[in-house]
Amino acid sequence: MPTSPLPPGSTLGILGGGQLGRMLSQAASRLGFDVVILDPEAGSPAGRVSARQIVAAYDDPEALSELGRSCDAVTFEFENVPAASVERLAGSGARVAPGPLALSTAQDRVVEKTFLNDAGAPTVAFASVDTVEDLKAAVQTLGLPALLKTRRDGYDGKGQAWIRSPEDVETAFAAIGGRPAILEAAADFVRELSVIAARRADGEIAVYPLGENSHAGGVLRTTIAPATASAGTQARAHEIASAILNGLDYVGVIGVELFELADGTLLVNEIAPRVHNTGHWTQDGCVCDQFEQHVRAVVGWPLGPTAAHARIEMTNLLGDEIEQWPALAAAPDVRLHLYGKAEARAGRKMAHVNRVMGPA
Amino acid sequence: MPTSPLPPGSTLGILGGGQLGRMLSQAASRLGFDVVILDPEAGSPAGRVSARQIVAAYDDPEALSELGRSCDAVTFEFENVPAASVERLAGSGARVAPGPLALSTAQDRVVEKTFLNDAGAPTVAFASVDTVEDLKAAVQTLGLPALLKTRRDGYDGKGQAWIRSPEDVETAFAAIGGRPAILEAAADFVRELSVIAARRADGEIAVYPLGENSHAGGVLRTTIAPATASAGTQARAHEIASAILNGLDYVGVIGVELFELADGTLLVNEIAPRVHNTGHWTQDGCVCDQFEQHVRAVVGWPLGPTAAHARIEMTNLLGDEIEQWPALAAAPDVRLHLYGKAEARAGRKMAHVNRVMGPA
Repeated sequence: MPTSPLPPGSTLGILGGGQLGRMLSQAASRLGFDVVILDPEAGSPAGRVSARQIVAAYDDPEALSELGRSCDAVTFEFENVPAASVERLAGSGARVAPGPLALSTAQDRVVEKTFLNDAGAPTVAFASVDTVEDLKAAVQTLGLPALLKTRRDGYDGKGQAWIRSPEDVETAFAAIGGRPAILEAAADFVRELSVIAARRADGEIAVYPLGENSHAGGVLRTTIAPATASAGTQARAHEIASAILNGLDYVGVIGVELFELADGTLLVNEIAPRVHNTGHWTQDGCVCDQFEQHVRAVVGWPLGPTAAHARIEMTNLLGDEIEQWPALAAAPDVRLHLYGKAEARAGRKMAHVNRVMGPA
Repeated sequence: MPTSPLPPGSTLGILGGGQLGRMLSQAASRLGFDVVILDPEAGSPAGRVSARQIVAAYDDPEALSELGRSCDAVTFEFENVPAASVERLAGSGARVAPGPLALSTAQDRVVEKTFLNDAGAPTVAFASVDTVEDLKAAVQTLGLPALLKTRRDGYDGKGQAWIRSPEDVETAFAAIGGRPAILEAAADFVRELSVIAARRADGEIAVYPLGENSHAGGVLRTTIAPATASAGTQARAHEIASAILNGLDYVGVIGVELFELADGTLLVNEIAPRVHNTGHWTQDGCVCDQFEQHVRAVVGWPLGPTAAHARIEMTNLLGDEIEQWPALAAAPDVRLHLYGKAEARAGRKMAHVNRVMGPA
């Protein structure tokens, strides 16, 4: 991929018109770029703040060619982009980032964990599972409890089933539809951390301070960042993020979810080759947030600074929690980020708020 | 005007699609509002980051009615809105802010200065001028040098002429086209300050710290804020801004340009009933910037905090100064704000940058 910087006035394409695409688009506009969104739903959250939206399926060959032709660079707000779509975009002449290797790695949990361990970023023990017999053997090897996940798709806790006793094996496999799967040993972690990092095509890397995350029902509820962590833990997270970025020859921002064990060991839970919900705190904690950082990497600009100037508690507003807006709008230490979604379906990410807790 | 807050998902209309409309639109989107721009030029800077643009003249009756009907609230990025346009918007049912009194006051320099002095916000001495004879009499009264300005229109130093000796009278009057004018006594000021303030319909007021401005060729070059100023000067600026806002029963953000005299006296140079170039520093110096503040006031939300967390030097990039972007993009203490204008005409405001000088 070329490393020369694209000048302001160039056009950035984004596959996906949800809240991540919306915040990427807003960051790109601030830097003087025009933005085109591709999303099957007309009037998407990102489309409504961008110069143009192409309304088409993510695998529509003509729409992809049109997006590639009308843009100088194209990126994604989600990782489950069909490989054929990436090839078509790249064939149309636009820079495409992150690249096919990052996407294919993140799309398959067995490939991902194999890559991570090879790159020196340790994970829990795992086994590939195609049949109930595989699963029984894996349970023998890894012990219980263990977590069964589909190899592909699935997010926010979907496509997963815990196995707590040998009797759970068949129901768990049925629960995930008997699809190609991965069995993961349970991680005996004391907390969940994440690190947001970026890499340019020339190899320059920038890493944000750690965030500490809490989930409920498989969905992120809060991130507090910078997390309280020893210098050793921070250095190790930096090392892990760098190993992953270099191993994927990555361009853009990546989210790396970590488990911290009682002895301080960091294991990688999963990676997301895109801007990440646990990095939203950077919007109000850093001079250059993860969205601007991703745009900078994709268009070949120098990466921005990652130091925090404020400590932030980020909270997701799900479904009808958006009705809390009057109280949040009145809180002087709270910054609102609403996604412009008309329908507040249960569990749907409608907004997040960043509460300024004090100086970093 | 109703004071009940409009919920997220409501639609905000903005008359004017330049950089101020663009940054207002981006702030409104973050709060979950949809934005419709009215601007005669298709693909305007604001239109390219908004849900919709109506392409029509600012006095097009049908376009104004359509804007008013499709929006819950309407505001402006410039003050020279025809009174008939404001009436038509208000008649269509949308909240319109700022109101007709603020616009008509700011559109005529004689009306403005008369209002200011009546409100307890002192200005330089001035006289209304309709003829050369008026002008000669005014020169006698005010002394020389003095500044002749058209009563209406004119900005960034246009429509102005200095009179330094009695022989200049006729050429100066000819230079401004012999139009209805104001003669202003020269202000013997030591520096130019400005204060950005906001008011809600219920009378709540919020005032930002002072900015110190430098101009070249009648155009703003830099603002440094918070400006170094005594507590007395800050309190006086607060008092002046409040008097103006209350006197106009104002809703929204206003920019108040001030002259500081050697003895510390503050005189009001002019007011702008809108977000203001000298308030751009708030984007990177405050939790709630002037654009979000204006949206909050117009949609009836509580005003946000105005304290500065960083000291900022804001610099406008005019015309081909935009070509400095590679160096600016590489400076870690600089935040770029580009306006997405394709053509870098000489003197055209293309972007601004906020340099973080340190904590406030």
